[in-house]
Order: sequence, then C-alpha cells, then structure tokens
Amino acid sequence: MSLLKNSRIGGVLLDITGVLKDGGIAIPGSVEAVRKLREAGLAVKLVTNETQITRRTMVSCLVNLGYSVQEQDIVPPCPALISLLQHENLRPHLLVHPNVLPEFEAIDQSNPNCVVLGDAGDNFTYENLNKAFRILINMEKPRLFSLGQGRYYSDSESLMLDVGVFTAALEYAADVKAEIIGKPQPEFFRSALRDMGVVPEEAVMVGDDVVSDVGGAQNCGLTGVLVRTGKYRPVDEKHPTVHPDAIVDDLAHAVNLILKSRK
Amino acid sequence: MSLLKNSRIGGVLLDITGVLKDGGIAIPGSVEAVRKLREAGLAVKLVTNETQITRRTMVSCLVNLGYSVQEQDIVPPCPALISLLQHENLRPHLLVHPNVLPEFEAIDQSNPNCVVLGDAGDNFTYENLNKAFRILINMEKPRLFSLGQGRYYSDSESLMLDVGVFTAALEYAADVKAEIIGKPQPEFFRSALRDMGVVPEEAVMVGDDVVSDVGGAQNCGLTGVLVRTGKYRPVDEKHPTVHPDAIVDDLAHAVNLILKSRK
Repeated sequence: MSLLKNSRIGGVLLDITGVLKDGGIAIPGSVEAVRKLREAGLAVKLVTNETQITRRTMVSCLVNLGYSVQEQDIVPPCPALISLLQHENLRPHLLVHPNVLPEFEAIDQSNPNCVVLGDAGDNFTYENLNKAFRILINMEKPRLFSLGQGRYYSDSESLMLDVGVFTAALEYAADVKAEIIGKPQPEFFRSALRDMGVVPEEAVMVGDDVVSDVGGAQNCGLTGVLVRTGKYRPVDEKHPTVHPDAIVDDLAHAVNLILKSRK
Repeated sequence: MSLLKNSRIGGVLLDITGVLKDGGIAIPGSVEAVRKLREAGLAVKLVTNETQITRRTMVSCLVNLGYSVQEQDIVPPCPALISLLQHENLRPHLLVHPNVLPEFEAIDQSNPNCVVLGDAGDNFTYENLNKAFRILINMEKPRLFSLGQGRYYSDSESLMLDVGVFTAALEYAADVKAEIIGKPQPEFFRSALRDMGVVPEEAVMVGDDVVSDVGGAQNCGLTGVLVRTGKYRPVDEKHPTVHPDAIVDDLAHAVNLILKSRK
C-alpha cells in the first residue's frame, strides 16, 4: 500500500452514507475503523449532506449500528442554513423532507422571500415542485438555497436521486443559480475544520462522492480519499477533473492508509 | 402598426397553448384570426410540443372551442419521435403522460435502451424519476430523448412546469445531454414547412414562448412573432439573445400584421 503524501494528519472528516453505512447496515470494518482513528488521537467529524433526518435521529441510527458518536460529532447543512436565514432575515418556502421540518420551527415562513430545497424524497412531487417554482418566478430577484448538490446516493438496494437533481430542475425552470449549503461548498468544510481546530493541510476527507466529498475537500486544501463503497462506480476513478489522493476499497483501508502515513 | 420585414409570407405556423387557447378557453379573437389566415390563402399548421393528449383529442378540444382544424393540421413531436425510434431500433422506457401511451403501442418497450420524457404532469413523481434515472445510469452510452425543452406553460390559472425542467434534472443526474424532439429543434420546424410546401423565408411562427417558438423559428430562417398571451411575461421582451421580429398583444394582432405585411 502506498502512503498519502500528507504526513501531518491531525483530523479526519468522514462522509456518513456510503462510508459508515449503506441503508440501515454498517459497512463492514467501518465501526472498528472509526474507533482506531480516535484511539490514534485524531479528531473526527462526520460531515454529511443528509437532510432526510435530524441530527438526533442520525446519532441514534449510528449508535444502533455500533458507532460511538454524539450530536456534536455530526456536521449537517441545516444548522448552517438556519444561521444564514436568520442573519439575512430570509423567510423560506421549504421543500424538504417532513422529518427535518422541526429544525425550521423557529424560522418565520410567512410570505416567503426565498426557496429552500433539501432531500425531500417522495415529497418531490410535481405539485410541490410547481409550488416552489411559482414562488421563485414571482420574485424580482429569486433566491434558491439547496442543501447540497448531490446527483444520487445509494440506499442499500438502489441508487436514489439526490437534492442536486431537483435543484438543477428549478434552476432551469426559473433561470436562477442556486446557492449551495453543504458539501462541496468550501465554507462547509472550513467550519467543520474550525470546530476540530485542524487546518486544511492537516486534514483528510473520506467519501464515496468523487465530486462533493473528494473534489470539494481538495478545493479547500484537504487530502481527499475516495472509497469503493456506497454509490461508488468504477467510472468515478476516471473523473475528468477530480483526481483523488487515494482510492481504497473501504473506510477500513482508508484508515489503515491514514495511520501508516503519519510520521 | 409597423409592418413585418417579410413581405412574401406564404405560410404561418401557430403554437396552440397560449396562442389559440389558455387552459380550456379560446383566447379572444384567435378563432376569427385563424379563419382570416385561411381566407387569405395562407397555409397554416399548428406546431405544438403538447404531449399530454393525443393529436385526436387535441382536434376535438380545438373544434369544441370553435376552430376548424383536422388531425393533419397539427404537428406534435410524438410522430417524429416514433419514426426515429423505429429507424434506430430503439426500445424506450417511457416517462410520459398516460394519455399518450396509446401512441407508443406499436413500439417494443422491453429491455429498454433509451429513455423518453414527455410532459408527464403528475406522473413526474420521485419514484418515476428514479426509475428513469436508474435505466440511464446503467447504460454504457445513455440516450435520453425529450419531447421539447420548455421551462413552463400557462394552464389558465397558473404556471406549470414543463418537460424541459425534468429533462434538465435527468441530464444532471445521469451526466447526459438529452436529444430534443419538438420545438426549438430545427428539423421539427422544417418538417412542418415541408408539409406545407413553404420555404422558411416565406413563413412566420407565432408563439408565446420566446425561446422555443420565436428563437427556434428564427434560427431556421422564419420570421418569429411573440404574443403577449399564455405564458408571456414582460421580462420576455428583454430576452438577452432572442429578439422577436414583432411583439403583439395576441394572435388577432399578429394576423392583422401578417396580412398587412404582404405585398
């Protein structure tokens, strides 16, 4: 096994879906791998674009799978978006999964002046997309926020369309450019690193999305490792613009590589 | 009223939705306007990207509104697509409106090797989009056909998302470029003109879609007239790339202009 070029690794960011778990099942070796990272004294954060469940539900789900995690270990896009909405006095029309509506309870949603898209799943109906579109097209300066820009993710049995697809749809319909909150937005990676007290040059991101995880992290100066689990497809290794610092079979192999690369 | 630069007009192409009718109602003056075109000896074809109903249903709908039309007067995208599918031995997975499924009865749809999107309306569910996506992503060379690329249309009460929006969604998801059948595809305008025996330089297109109707027609050498009915919005008059040869209140005004412009 070759080593990563980065020998000063102090912190590791991990994607959740497709790296720690696939559907409701832990990916073999991943529980042990996270434990090894912590035992080696590395800071670990789970950066996810997951917006179908709350942070609390994600913690119980991971704990049930054998992971030792707490809410503050998880960095999802919702808190960053809510802080932005409050800061700019924005009143969102939400097209998100019903499970995450409670996160927006404190936000005024009357007379909306922006549209927010999350991974709404089955809530992406023609009717709901029409509603969001009509709000955008009637704004003088439409503002569309998207919680991530993923194309698809793996849900144990099959690939599922992700929020980025419906963002592309509304961008085309209303002739607007969405503002992305979540991976691969640089600020999203940076805020996770600030929480850990680690600079980008001393951090590694491990993910199954060659663009959002690996490319996004590399753009911020992190080392980016692609795993061959989750939504990974062989064609990802020939991506025209993103060249991962390493491509490994799974998180267990990624962690071995990270630990061996440290001086 | 100024005249069109084109004084040799021999044929007129008309959009249906937003020009002849809006929802289930004839646009005032349009029935009389079509009659005047025919009385003046001009060839008339109705070119539409409508894929929610069959050509036969469209004829009864227009006749009920007072128009004198027959099936051969209407040029929809479905027949062009079906001819292409047969010619290239393509077996489509159809994501279209249930009303138009009968048009595809003669086409083998087993073991699909392409995906066809029409204006599926409420059939644009998360589940159906996932199905179409999974077929595309599993093809070595994905082929996606779209019956038009409209952003939205007006349905008497409100704006409705059109097929182009869901085409943009699947293009993003599967990283593929769709092949468009219908306006603004040049061959679509040309085939309508061939049927009429009129060359592009002697033809006018009247529509409410500044890009698909007016821009598409102008790209083929036709004169393009925009009407302020249907989905028209004032911002369309400032379109960055499409500059209509004339902008008029409705089809009645367009027809007056066409008839006065002839030498």
